[in-house]
Amino acid sequence: MATAHFSTPSPYKTERPSAPEEDFLYTRFAKDFSLKTESEGSNKVIGIALFGAGRAGTVHLRNLVKNPRVDLLYIVEDLESKWENIRKYWQIENVKFLSSKDQEQVFKDSRVDAVIVASPTFTHESIVTGALLNGKDVFCEKPIAENNTSTENCFRLARERKQHLFCAFNKRFDPSYQHLRKRVQAGEVGHVHMIKISGKSSPLASLDYLKTSGGCFHDTVVHDIDVMCWMLGEYPSRVAACSQAHIPEIAAIGDHDTAAVIFTFPSGTIGILDWCRYSSYGYDHRLEVFGPKGIIMCENERPLSGIKSQTNGLEGPLSVSNYYTFSSRYCTAYANEMEHFLDVLQGKAEMATRGPEAMAVIRIATACEKSARTGRFVDMEWGPEFDERGS
Amino acid sequence: MATAHFSTPSPYKTERPSAPEEDFLYTRFAKDFSLKTESEGSNKVIGIALFGAGRAGTVHLRNLVKNPRVDLLYIVEDLESKWENIRKYWQIENVKFLSSKDQEQVFKDSRVDAVIVASPTFTHESIVTGALLNGKDVFCEKPIAENNTSTENCFRLARERKQHLFCAFNKRFDPSYQHLRKRVQAGEVGHVHMIKISGKSSPLASLDYLKTSGGCFHDTVVHDIDVMCWMLGEYPSRVAACSQAHIPEIAAIGDHDTAAVIFTFPSGTIGILDWCRYSSYGYDHRLEVFGPKGIIMCENERPLSGIKSQTNGLEGPLSVSNYYTFSSRYCTAYANEMEHFLDVLQGKAEMATRGPEAMAVIRIATACEKSARTGRFVDMEWGPEFDERGS
Amino acid sequence: MATAHFSTPSPYKTERPSAPEEDFLYTRFAKDFSLKTESEGSNKVIGIALFGAGRAGTVHLRNLVKNPRVDLLYIVEDLESKWENIRKYWQIENVKFLSSKDQEQVFKDSRVDAVIVASPTFTHESIVTGALLNGKDVFCEKPIAENNTSTENCFRLARERKQHLFCAFNKRFDPSYQHLRKRVQAGEVGHVHMIKISGKSSPLASLDYLKTSGGCFHDTVVHDIDVMCWMLGEYPSRVAACSQAHIPEIAAIGDHDTAAVIFTFPSGTIGILDWCRYSSYGYDHRLEVFGPKGIIMCENERPLSGIKSQTNGLEGPLSVSNYYTFSSRYCTAYANEMEHFLDVLQGKAEMATRGPEAMAVIRIATACEKSARTGRFVDMEWGPEFDERGS
Amino acid sequence: MATAHFSTPSPYKTERPSAPEEDFLYTRFAKDFSLKTESEGSNKVIGIALFGAGRAGTVHLRNLVKNPRVDLLYIVEDLESKWENIRKYWQIENVKFLSSKDQEQVFKDSRVDAVIVASPTFTHESIVTGALLNGKDVFCEKPIAENNTSTENCFRLARERKQHLFCAFNKRFDPSYQHLRKRVQAGEVGHVHMIKISGKSSPLASLDYLKTSGGCFHDTVVHDIDVMCWMLGEYPSRVAACSQAHIPEIAAIGDHDTAAVIFTFPSGTIGILDWCRYSSYGYDHRLEVFGPKGIIMCENERPLSGIKSQTNGLEGPLSVSNYYTFSSRYCTAYANEMEHFLDVLQGKAEMATRGPEAMAVIRIATACEKSARTGRFVDMEWGPEFDERGS
Repeated sequence: MATAHFSTPSPYKTERPSAPEEDFLYTRFAKDFSLKTESEGSNKVIGIALFGAGRAGTVHLRNLVKNPRVDLLYIVEDLESKWENIRKYWQIENVKFLSSKDQEQVFKDSRVDAVIVASPTFTHESIVTGALLNGKDVFCEKPIAENNTSTENCFRLARERKQHLFCAFNKRFDPSYQHLRKRVQAGEVGHVHMIKISGKSSPLASLDYLKTSGGCFHDTVVHDIDVMCWMLGEYPSRVAACSQAHIPEIAAIGDHDTAAVIFTFPSGTIGILDWCRYSSYGYDHRLEVFGPKGIIMCENERPLSGIKSQTNGLEGPLSVSNYYTFSSRYCTAYANEMEHFLDVLQGKAEMATRGPEAMAVIRIATACEKSARTGRFVDMEWGPEFDERGS
Repeated sequence: MATAHFSTPSPYKTERPSAPEEDFLYTRFAKDFSLKTESEGSNKVIGIALFGAGRAGTVHLRNLVKNPRVDLLYIVEDLESKWENIRKYWQIENVKFLSSKDQEQVFKDSRVDAVIVASPTFTHESIVTGALLNGKDVFCEKPIAENNTSTENCFRLARERKQHLFCAFNKRFDPSYQHLRKRVQAGEVGHVHMIKISGKSSPLASLDYLKTSGGCFHDTVVHDIDVMCWMLGEYPSRVAACSQAHIPEIAAIGDHDTAAVIFTFPSGTIGILDWCRYSSYGYDHRLEVFGPKGIIMCENERPLSGIKSQTNGLEGPLSVSNYYTFSSRYCTAYANEMEHFLDVLQGKAEMATRGPEAMAVIRIATACEKSARTGRFVDMEWGPEFDERGS
Repeated sequence: MATAHFSTPSPYKTERPSAPEEDFLYTRFAKDFSLKTESEGSNKVIGIALFGAGRAGTVHLRNLVKNPRVDLLYIVEDLESKWENIRKYWQIENVKFLSSKDQEQVFKDSRVDAVIVASPTFTHESIVTGALLNGKDVFCEKPIAENNTSTENCFRLARERKQHLFCAFNKRFDPSYQHLRKRVQAGEVGHVHMIKISGKSSPLASLDYLKTSGGCFHDTVVHDIDVMCWMLGEYPSRVAACSQAHIPEIAAIGDHDTAAVIFTFPSGTIGILDWCRYSSYGYDHRLEVFGPKGIIMCENERPLSGIKSQTNGLEGPLSVSNYYTFSSRYCTAYANEMEHFLDVLQGKAEMATRGPEAMAVIRIATACEKSARTGRFVDMEWGPEFDERGS
Repeated sequence: MATAHFSTPSPYKTERPSAPEEDFLYTRFAKDFSLKTESEGSNKVIGIALFGAGRAGTVHLRNLVKNPRVDLLYIVEDLESKWENIRKYWQIENVKFLSSKDQEQVFKDSRVDAVIVASPTFTHESIVTGALLNGKDVFCEKPIAENNTSTENCFRLARERKQHLFCAFNKRFDPSYQHLRKRVQAGEVGHVHMIKISGKSSPLASLDYLKTSGGCFHDTVVHDIDVMCWMLGEYPSRVAACSQAHIPEIAAIGDHDTAAVIFTFPSGTIGILDWCRYSSYGYDHRLEVFGPKGIIMCENERPLSGIKSQTNGLEGPLSVSNYYTFSSRYCTAYANEMEHFLDVLQGKAEMATRGPEAMAVIRIATACEKSARTGRFVDMEWGPEFDERGS
């Protein structure tokens, strides 16, 4: 009778699908439940020193403090007034706090396997160099150094010393971006004909920060350039960019707050990137990849994404806000990134971002800036040192 | 290089999908473009008289006035002051306007093939009877008559006279509901284990209207009961309902503004219906069908459904409002319903809602009302006259 | 008790919101119900001749045939085999069918007030000129003529003769785009810092069509250029474009199938436009406008947009397809566009797209093409004849 | 010019909104960054024993192992083969593993402040009682005991001993549900006229589990009953339920797989609950609250909720799957729940679910079961012991 004739066999009698890998929290639970540990690599606890306990440093601290793979040995932070609060807040009795003037202690301590660099930009180069020369691996927030040549020298040093110098492009570790990339790299849309990345930041960065940021292309657009090239597996052969300064204070320091770039890639892919320094409605980062077989988009993740309300008369459904900023939006990415670095150190993974990739991305940011400044297309060439791309 | 190795054959060399039938506007365009006319049935232009030019009548008028299949002959409307405005607004010079006291003229006019009844409820029975006795087919807004017995008599008369008496359950002609039903009836979710319909009306009906409406179950819930049974192809064997009057003016006239019903169907399907008289955020009507193979939902259609905005600081994305009321939400349904009736008259389609179906639905509404009033489950039995279900 | 203490006054005692203007179908219903006719302008029925009964012509035919404001007098169509089918399908007994060789009859018929030009591109100029010289107003599908100079001559002729020459940029009449523009022009996002339009067509155009289409920038990108400038109220001062031909057959005829453009506008707005000739998943057209006060997006409208299903195991929710193509996506836009043209002819509205606007848009398309071809930024200057913008 | 006249003051000159509290990850980051610790309550590290390392136990283990507020002392688990794997996987060298036959050791160990009970149902009562009698606080997965009387005795014992007996209704700690409740309890929709909760589980529970589960109403529906009453702040006065067993194996053990309940609450609120044992498309749990001022819904949260794709021809946009099951969907809820319990123990919070609430919920489940079994409405009365409700 009625729809009863569509009756199906008991689900107890049929094969049922297993959990989808998109449910990454279930994947983690299933791992916890099965209690399987990696067979490859060592399980050596890694001795770590953290440089800088500002915003980025705070994010890393959470991922280090509660981590059974890590022995956090030092925090190097020049604001000594924070030391006691950090110790108390995180209940880390055994960590030693230092000022940067004493950072040599860290380099000389043989228990330290690796350093995490989240201190101000101008300090990066000396920490990176000091660590590498003393046999420490390095996880470093972008940029590695204050100019392209110094950056290149750092990577050369790492290569010579056979130490890891990991440039922290955290977006690569976002579950959504990784999911998207996996599908793109499996050919789901075919040859990518168009890739678009749109980035709008929140909250408004302080002018003090912006003054030393290196300009919008090197400060933030560079992250999206990295994502674009990482998605595609190639570097652009031509770049055209334009930029504007609508905010007078930003104009006054010679920087821009709005930019757009079109990239032409050797395979024929066209890339489009747009960026704004400040979004009044929260962090807005989106990505889409189009090809002959279709499109895959990564729209904004949102906290409480299931909530919808209509309580303001005849207004339509209202969802919950975007994430406020990078530290909440990429919360999982930062945790994954640190685990990746630990995997690399324990011999369980290849390092995701190698030197030539980081260098390539910086060169592209420079080309964008030049195009925007000159009003000309900029052609780019890539020597054999850029041939290989990691994953 | 890069994703280029996923390169696909030229789309000019491969078969490309044709238009999906869900794109019902394209289907209509394709028909217009191909210029194919139905082979079955006649193409006789239908002589029509419209009774009532209120809200429902206005909706029907739009669908009749511009319709090449229709010769609109009469409008019977007691508000004589509207006659001239209607004539001028719709540019219908040749239509004759009458008061209901002269409605016999319509019944005696042999050019009239059918009447559309959209006048006040208390007039329905006499128009329906008069039309049927004079060989006219009838399209009648619910209810056919003021009580179940009279309604039954009307259907009996139509059956005896072999005339069409079409009870206008317009929701059956909504493209979304039809799409959903088609998939359900194709077994896409398997045996339906649960069906839910949620209805909240807008704007607030006038108390004058409510006083003569017959109570919430017969006035509006009946439409959703019809949709539920039409989706499933069966009638419930048991009903439990509760209702409340939160609005004092509605309580004062002995009606309710909030109701919930659970239905048990003979095949084991459970149905849930909830209803509210007034939604402050516009017309809200949703439906979902669940079975062992999955779920299909029909959420609210919205005008300008692609618009999303975030222009109120850190509020989340805001969509455009629901439709305000039935006349916009079911605009397409009403047009399709009229075309269906014309198809029936031209011999191109079987009538969608037959007498026993309309009677069944009224009986169920009565059972709901009884359950809510008594606080008891009500069991229902269905004789062989209800065996067959149309469309 | 519980939430009861939030009890509110009866809605019968409080002011309730009226219908939102976004519910454009309700607005139409309310107009039908109130029976109010425009006081301005004439109500003269307009004598019309339609040139071309292909795809665009079919769309217009539906909007003309059932229109009480229109007296459709002629259809000029060279495929004589279609005449009888058109007559029968649309039940238009009194329309005269002609071949284009006899089009002079139309121009000489004083009952004809206006012509609708939907014939092949190469015929446009002669029809436009013939009509204008004989005192007829003109509604013409883009392009007006086969090159910029001829187009300019047509507009000059219209200006001299004080006849209307309406260039049919139909997207301007889409309810969503109009809604978006209204909000932008009310300053809801503030000064627009970035506008993005993304267009991907479906189904794949035939090569025969493409050969005579004038190239992607003039054939289709031009529509989006028009929308962008119409949203902003200004024309770009600089353009940088790139384009690719991934489909070999399109490369073979010297056209492109993928393009991206960045525009700089005098006020500092940056515009981005991307376009693909063929989307395998249906018609995909989106738009977004960003400023210091937020963002408004127009994502894809969809047929049956409330339908969501999960009937394929652990796949996520699946919505219904995009519209297949322009004729269904812009169904309402085409109807509104025709009503607008009739409003113009009856003196009830100013014409939306004036000559200089149509000329500006063509010039911009030419600049895009040049930039893509040469790999250089193209600067644009705008004389005083472009100062005023309509609508 | 153009939209430039909407130019706004520099954002550096205006007050900008601070982070929305909905961004709960940012709230956590901001707390980490500010390094503020609670002033109230103690910061004493809590000695904990975990009973049971199955599914629920695994979830709790993750939240205990890495927790600076916790000193995990014992894991009581009868599957001794898991001991070594657990120790190794979580790197917990100092935890003592016991079989339940030795559980008295735990009760006698004065370092143990509290026990977490996640062992099989039949063991609950003896652990709860043993712990309470020895001065330990208790966190216990539902049910506290195997029948209503024993459960009541446990709560009485806790009350007498002034120990905490926390019944773990984890859904109360889901950020979305908490957000929704906060808005409801602030009166955003006014007096709640209707609340609906829909629950469909995934994956299919094993028959072995179901045989000892106590029947669907006590096993899982009880969670949603708790959520409903917790949202509203009242208990129902009348209940009508129906249920079905579509899956033969479930019918064979006398249980049901599909159920619906309507509740009438003293304030006039109507509640609707529907439930299915198995959803083929993943965990599906939704909630909506409606009142005179509008509606707030909590639809399904999804992993990778920003991903949308159209890579299957003219299918519409496809989102990523629902969460597979409770352990991923309520991952954050479980973590928050444990933190809440620790807050209670450290004197920083009132316990969320008190004895009478847990008892009330069990009584309601019993009433639902009775209504479904008898086909009658069941009226409920609530003595003064149920007057007070916690938050």
